[in-house]
Amino acid sequence: MKIEDVELYYLKMPEVLDIADGSQDALLVRVSAAGRSGWGECEAAPLVSIASWNCPMSHSICKPVRASVLGQRLESVADIHRIHALVRHDSMDLLQADHTLSGVDMALWDLLGKQRGEPAYRLLGYDQAYPKTAYASQLFGDDPQATLHSAKRARSEGFLAAKFGWGPFGLGAVQADEDQLHAAREGLGEDGILLVDAGTAWEDDVEQAALRLPALESVRARWLEEPFRSGALGAYAELARQSGAVRMAGGEGCHTFDQAKHLMDSGGIGYVQIDAGRIGGITSAKQVADYARTQGITFVNHTFTTHLALSASVHPFAGIEADELCEYPAAPTALGSDLTKTKIVPDANGRLHLPDAPGLGVEPDPAAIAKYLVDVEIRVGEELLYRTPEVPR
Amino acid sequence: MKIEDVELYYLKMPEVLDIADGSQDALLVRVSAAGRSGWGECEAAPLVSIASWNCPMSHSICKPVRASVLGQRLESVADIHRIHALVRHDSMDLLQADHTLSGVDMALWDLLGKQRGEPAYRLLGYDQAYPKTAYASQLFGDDPQATLHSAKRARSEGFLAAKFGWGPFGLGAVQADEDQLHAAREGLGEDGILLVDAGTAWEDDVEQAALRLPALESVRARWLEEPFRSGALGAYAELARQSGAVRMAGGEGCHTFDQAKHLMDSGGIGYVQIDAGRIGGITSAKQVADYARTQGITFVNHTFTTHLALSASVHPFAGIEADELCEYPAAPTALGSDLTKTKIVPDANGRLHLPDAPGLGVEPDPAAIAKYLVDVEIRVGEELLYRTPEVPR
Repeated sequence: MKIEDVELYYLKMPEVLDIADGSQDALLVRVSAAGRSGWGECEAAPLVSIASWNCPMSHSICKPVRASVLGQRLESVADIHRIHALVRHDSMDLLQADHTLSGVDMALWDLLGKQRGEPAYRLLGYDQAYPKTAYASQLFGDDPQATLHSAKRARSEGFLAAKFGWGPFGLGAVQADEDQLHAAREGLGEDGILLVDAGTAWEDDVEQAALRLPALESVRARWLEEPFRSGALGAYAELARQSGAVRMAGGEGCHTFDQAKHLMDSGGIGYVQIDAGRIGGITSAKQVADYARTQGITFVNHTFTTHLALSASVHPFAGIEADELCEYPAAPTALGSDLTKTKIVPDANGRLHLPDAPGLGVEPDPAAIAKYLVDVEIRVGEELLYRTPEVPR
Repeated sequence: MKIEDVELYYLKMPEVLDIADGSQDALLVRVSAAGRSGWGECEAAPLVSIASWNCPMSHSICKPVRASVLGQRLESVADIHRIHALVRHDSMDLLQADHTLSGVDMALWDLLGKQRGEPAYRLLGYDQAYPKTAYASQLFGDDPQATLHSAKRARSEGFLAAKFGWGPFGLGAVQADEDQLHAAREGLGEDGILLVDAGTAWEDDVEQAALRLPALESVRARWLEEPFRSGALGAYAELARQSGAVRMAGGEGCHTFDQAKHLMDSGGIGYVQIDAGRIGGITSAKQVADYARTQGITFVNHTFTTHLALSASVHPFAGIEADELCEYPAAPTALGSDLTKTKIVPDANGRLHLPDAPGLGVEPDPAAIAKYLVDVEIRVGEELLYRTPEVPR
């Protein structure tokens, strides 16, 4: 196959709210070759990732992503690695390129899987996809009562695990956070797996974070996610030394394998959380999963958007039985839930199974694309660099 | 002062060539408040950085950069730090935001300096700006003869130091690289300071890089820059252990202070090279310079574009006498040299002095802006998000 065409679709909710819900917009990527299409999704800031696909070249290592993708041969896994490396090199000085590459890379795995008639995890070298325990990923409520309610709902929907993050957590008094944590544990029940996401609230302030450790231990939080900004490795390592049974988790901000490796090597984390929509797609996520395994660190996907992004984020560690948890966007926007007809729904035991279908096994619904599609036009000089494409049939 | 207006100007050469010359385009940022303007410049991919200034919000921590800048109070250095931190937080999930912030941050220092009637280095806490030994930064010739010629020219123009990089270096046989190195040393003379930039040629292959060490030692290269991709810290550290008097240099790709810190902490580098147009402007570059000093690592600017970018990249380490080298774009495009009327030209001893003027002391020439300005238009839905502004008077 030769890559003939790549289309980008910017979707968004009619109203985007100033809350940490990442499912309010999406950038879909469709790669076409030999009569087939593969689909991927870039995380966040669709317009900027479109620009990094289409922009004029600045110099030899600051080319638009498309320069390294269109017209390329795609016959094998080695071709995906080759295209991936070419984008990383020729767009080295284009910061946003890693996010754009992420969606393109997913689409390449989807496309090659469809052409081969095999799920992407098989192309990645896994014999099988182990089921994962899905955790309902949601925001802390505005008050403990709201969090209690969310936790109960997650449990009643069959989830064995839930994560609470952002909202007011970490931004006010220690007591307020403690009340939130106890509400979450109460709602989840004694045997639920409780995970906590501080949303980088303490920047690099270990002392502030440490004040929450007794409550986190008391509610038996399995991990504390992103107490600090992504790069504050020293703070991560220091808190990890104090946190006992509560393990550190982080990594969603990483846009290269190298960054995830530094976090694993120097941050003392127990869980590395990778968003395939940011790190460079399935290719880089798999590289992280492989390295994590050698370090005794558990890999977890980071996903807060659609079931297409979910599938692409789970494939990279599908075959590693010990990596048993899986982030599940439990309360997405209508856009997040409408996008695909195929839904990846946890079973009665709260376990998630990847679709047993070629590629990523999840296809965007043209009707949903039509419903949420945003009209964009970018002109540079006389040239129309980008115009929102027609809805695919 | 209150920030009333920010304008972005995308400039480019009529033809952009597929070579590593980063001066073929530029993105200027003008910040206006209380009848004054400050100027800054973002490195590379102007269209993408414009999009990250103007794009619609994706969610609460994926806002366009302008959301954290327009309307802000600017009275003090603390205000610059506050605005900087706000952009980093509220645009956390927008990868390109760090590059856009870089130009904005420079303009804030320029503006505050003008309002105070003080050069930016004084606002940074330095009593004086020490002269720097400018090194002529240029590409390797296509063959050793061309490199010999470039080196001789640099010397005849009064430079005591020169750096050669990219071109064919590192991509072919070891012998070819050795010939290039000897040509550079011959052209530069016995007493010139010779610096070598491998342009990430060996990715993370320490063995390939090490094959060049004997020749690098023999020509007394002071540093070997970017033998590996930016994040390959382990490879950097390993080569540093073998490289004797030739020190490792790197860091131009860093877009946060944290990344530069990891490179200094774990990469074994002797020189940290920071592009203020990428790392988050003068604020982050100064933070790196301060940390480097505590680690016995020499700070050097990375600059391959205009004299505005040059001034902004030198201010952060202007007051550190021991950091004596300074990258100087010796052969920029016409755009690079035309942009500012004020030129920062090394003296007869090859030493560079910052202008003794308020702010950054270098003003873009409206005629040059008019000459190279690119027409851009970005529409999302019914809204015209960006249109190239009028040339300032």
